[in-house]
Amino acid sequence: MDNFEFHNPTRIIFGKGVESQVGDEVAKYSKKVLIHYGGGSAIKSGLIDRVRISLKAAGVDFVELGGVQPNPRVALVREGIELCRKESISFILAVGGGSVIDSAKAIGVGVPASHDVWDFYEYIVEPQKMLDVGVVLTIPAAGSESSSSSVVSNEEKQLKRGLSNEIMRPRFAFMNPELTFTLPPYQTACGAADIMAHIMERYFTNTKNVEFTDRLCEAGLKTIINNVPQVLENPNDYDARAEVMWTGCVAHNDLFNTGREGDWGSHSIEHEISALFDVAHGAGLAVIFPAWMKYVYKHDVARFSQFAERVWGLEMDHFNPEKTALAGIYRTEAFFRSIGLPVRLSEMDVPVESIPEMAKKCTGTGTTGNFIKLNTAAVTEIFNLAK
Amino acid sequence: MDNFEFHNPTRIIFGKGVESQVGDEVAKYSKKVLIHYGGGSAIKSGLIDRVRISLKAAGVDFVELGGVQPNPRVALVREGIELCRKESISFILAVGGGSVIDSAKAIGVGVPASHDVWDFYEYIVEPQKMLDVGVVLTIPAAGSESSSSSVVSNEEKQLKRGLSNEIMRPRFAFMNPELTFTLPPYQTACGAADIMAHIMERYFTNTKNVEFTDRLCEAGLKTIINNVPQVLENPNDYDARAEVMWTGCVAHNDLFNTGREGDWGSHSIEHEISALFDVAHGAGLAVIFPAWMKYVYKHDVARFSQFAERVWGLEMDHFNPEKTALAGIYRTEAFFRSIGLPVRLSEMDVPVESIPEMAKKCTGTGTTGNFIKLNTAAVTEIFNLAK
Repeated sequence: MDNFEFHNPTRIIFGKGVESQVGDEVAKYSKKVLIHYGGGSAIKSGLIDRVRISLKAAGVDFVELGGVQPNPRVALVREGIELCRKESISFILAVGGGSVIDSAKAIGVGVPASHDVWDFYEYIVEPQKMLDVGVVLTIPAAGSESSSSSVVSNEEKQLKRGLSNEIMRPRFAFMNPELTFTLPPYQTACGAADIMAHIMERYFTNTKNVEFTDRLCEAGLKTIINNVPQVLENPNDYDARAEVMWTGCVAHNDLFNTGREGDWGSHSIEHEISALFDVAHGAGLAVIFPAWMKYVYKHDVARFSQFAERVWGLEMDHFNPEKTALAGIYRTEAFFRSIGLPVRLSEMDVPVESIPEMAKKCTGTGTTGNFIKLNTAAVTEIFNLAK
Repeated sequence: MDNFEFHNPTRIIFGKGVESQVGDEVAKYSKKVLIHYGGGSAIKSGLIDRVRISLKAAGVDFVELGGVQPNPRVALVREGIELCRKESISFILAVGGGSVIDSAKAIGVGVPASHDVWDFYEYIVEPQKMLDVGVVLTIPAAGSESSSSSVVSNEEKQLKRGLSNEIMRPRFAFMNPELTFTLPPYQTACGAADIMAHIMERYFTNTKNVEFTDRLCEAGLKTIINNVPQVLENPNDYDARAEVMWTGCVAHNDLFNTGREGDWGSHSIEHEISALFDVAHGAGLAVIFPAWMKYVYKHDVARFSQFAERVWGLEMDHFNPEKTALAGIYRTEAFFRSIGLPVRLSEMDVPVESIPEMAKKCTGTGTTGNFIKLNTAAVTEIFNLAK
């Protein structure tokens, strides 16, 4: 086990109807806030209206900025920064899923900065301060509601980049599973793949002697695997939605990687796909992760056979652990397919011709990932396994 | 799943040698602190000296109060309160195990109070403020390093009472598994029983649809069950010590009971034993928990057979789940015995004559526990099963 620090101060308020308390919670931090949200669903469902009512009742003034798209754009972030400066706002309430929260965090680090916010995402400067951010979560997927990270896309540069810093954890997150009842099946499945990927990125590690965190990861994966099919069958199953929502948060709050080094290669490879094509992050991960597994599993067959046995309940072939390891990879891929996700680039209309460009942008002259350091050739190979 | 709030802001600094940074961390909060510790071991090992050096290097002034006993006494707490007031101290650094931390928390809530600190532990008044408390942990057991609770004994009244409040979580905890190498086998085993009890108190719930937290609990229990025998075999096994130490913290940081109601009957029954007799809390739990299980398991055989199968790896008897449930209880008792703990009151020299008094004090005219509400007669029955 490696030395580590763990500090996750985000307050979670979870359950039926909890968002009605959001005004009182916001009022502890600020009397004038930016409500940041995405497109139609949060408005159509009446959620934004309920949030406005709760804020007004608590005496909190607000301005609004909607229109966050999946794979949030730096252009809108810059608009939010200007708005916060103009209106002297020190608190951002993100109402939505990962894209909205990530956009809110980007605005939050951008406002106090004296340079363009994209500099943070190109790792030219490190953020020192973030406006307080609070969350009303509507999509269990990104885990951004208590994570330290934010992923933003730059359309001009055709880049999608993730930024992570301990100052970027939200102050609180309201999580009502009922708000996820209306999520379409495909988006639900994409969220599941994202959650599973967050856990698997941590699970596949070279750090030895990490039994507790292995088992925590397995607890999260098994919960998603059991509950997502239930949710797809019955979108209004509160308890199954609740399992997915709470697991999705813990999956990315950094408990599961205490004392171990994660991989994150699949995430960085996927980012190249959704930077160029209109692809949901979770769908991209469902395509890339099994391909990554097929490329790397021989590096540590024991870890992959443990994954197969403990997560998928497969019987260990003690005379042929590699067979068990491969069976676990096939089951992972089959599960993604079973919940309606693509598992090949061709199913997402990503042309093979774009592989060299994506592989090159992913690694530059260096490498990505930790389990095995992947150079451009290796990433190309993984893309080919995912064709 | 029940609605819940979860907020655990304690910063964990975990690993080899981390306690050398304690001065810098303390200096963020205060320039004059109370070092609070127990008996000889922290001094003999040189730990207190290293803490002094780290504080001095960070420019932090300190006074000291040692002498905390297992089952910490309110008399010493009162002494600590006087000392902090006299010296105008606003930060307490607890160096030790659960008793030291619990004593530090008691001092911390006592200093700002205008009445005797014991009033909090009789639930006459609720604490509103606590001095900042930081921890250098030496015994993985109580989980007090990031929990909201404190247990203190009142010798005059022969009472042992637990107090729990969200303001009572420490600011930070330094956790170096190397500091636990010198823990004697019996104390190591007592700590393991305490950790397992913290998880099992949460596991045995009437709340339905709690799959994720069930699995998290199982992850913790399996980790303790696998690693404690290794630690007893080789006390200097860093990795096994690290698994126990980190699991012991998470076991009681309240993640494992998010969305569910715990039981806590066994803890309250055990407190009556260690209030009257010189018995380690963990040893008392090893005696009481299996007896409690035998008394309550018919209330929810499915939960106990799940425990048997998932935690102990026992094969489910689908035609006789009760048999599987009982097998899990026997395995729990056998495990405690295998690591050198008593599993009967007689092995701790607790006379049967004291059962009526302990049962009466435990419940008064009410009940204890949530899985089944236990009145005096039920607690008596559990004591009899533990004779």
